[in-house]
Amino acid sequence: MPEVTFQISMSLDGYVAGPNADLENPLGVGGEQLHEWIFGLRSWREPHGLEGGVDNEDSRLVAELIEAQGAVIMGRRMFSNGSGPWEDDPNAGGWWGETPPFHVPVFVLTHHAREPLELSDTTFHFVTDGPEAALERAREAAGERDVSIAGGAEIAREFLRLGFVDRMHIHVTPILLGGGVALFEGLDPEDLALDQIDVRGAEAVTHITYRPRSDA
Amino acid sequence: MPEVTFQISMSLDGYVAGPNADLENPLGVGGEQLHEWIFGLRSWREPHGLEGGVDNEDSRLVAELIEAQGAVIMGRRMFSNGSGPWEDDPNAGGWWGETPPFHVPVFVLTHHAREPLELSDTTFHFVTDGPEAALERAREAAGERDVSIAGGAEIAREFLRLGFVDRMHIHVTPILLGGGVALFEGLDPEDLALDQIDVRGAEAVTHITYRPRSDA
Repeated sequence: MPEVTFQISMSLDGYVAGPNADLENPLGVGGEQLHEWIFGLRSWREPHGLEGGVDNEDSRLVAELIEAQGAVIMGRRMFSNGSGPWEDDPNAGGWWGETPPFHVPVFVLTHHAREPLELSDTTFHFVTDGPEAALERAREAAGERDVSIAGGAEIAREFLRLGFVDRMHIHVTPILLGGGVALFEGLDPEDLALDQIDVRGAEAVTHITYRPRSDA
Repeated sequence: MPEVTFQISMSLDGYVAGPNADLENPLGVGGEQLHEWIFGLRSWREPHGLEGGVDNEDSRLVAELIEAQGAVIMGRRMFSNGSGPWEDDPNAGGWWGETPPFHVPVFVLTHHAREPLELSDTTFHFVTDGPEAALERAREAAGERDVSIAGGAEIAREFLRLGFVDRMHIHVTPILLGGGVALFEGLDPEDLALDQIDVRGAEAVTHITYRPRSDA
């Protein structure tokens, strides 16, 4: 049965972006280190149109997650790093390039309506009626496959809080950021009880899969 | 070669004690959940004088850590939860009972000198001349075995900052505390670069071993 999944790279001290993030440096100071482990993987490079890469345990795991996803949900900021009316967004085309790496329908949560945007084989749909509506549309688009919550942290917390996430994959990276965007900040522990259901330790990163308990 | 090790249970959001810790409730709100995984293990129960318990991957890992340790270093608060002159500490005998679970020499960092305290087969030594001196004495006492930094978080950070820790075992527990004592708070990321050297996923907890890089 298709599930709603969420995956993210987190520092050992709990951050998913470094301190002092801004439009120029959306990952914050040191935040790019969170993702270094993925850039060299064949399974990540291929959908990004890049050649080569290694085939290891990390790569297999990423391949599984990518193959499983039939639709993606993301926040407006993750789409364009902007906010407010589209005509004022200098990055209204998104920052995912002419051939975005998703290759499945993407549902962007925004307060500002807009026609769908087709870029190569990825179509971005803009959803203004909230997370539940976005999820419904994404599920329909995904069919037999999973819906992946891409982020950012705020969107992820909202979906977690609403009990919409079936599986959460945390990639624990061996770095400290010392500040920044704390993944779980502001989430009431009462609202999210977790069962650990899988652990895979690869060379540099630990992948832990949790299942939120539906009774929380 | 004997090493200096540090092990601790951490919530997925990076805390090693919950919010609002006080003398009555030193682990803070919800903090006891961090340690629930260990209480049922045979390897933990045995040195605590308790019978029974399960033999699983968690238990084997804890057994290895316990067997490897030849001396322990802890802070004053971890010893008695007190501070200040010993004559004013209502808990000057420590809160580890008449048969403490260590069974090896324990070096307590304190500002207040005191004669060693022998309780069953554990002797507590009180060290007033700082972490380096404590480490030197603990190494000597441990002989061919490891020196284990028991905590709390402040002591651990100090030893990490000083570059004294060879191996750090983080037990990542599938809980959120939402606040409390953040293990790495105040530690400059520049002072602690880590290599992940081992991962063991047990039923409910993920054990990750890191080696601090000596060039950091």
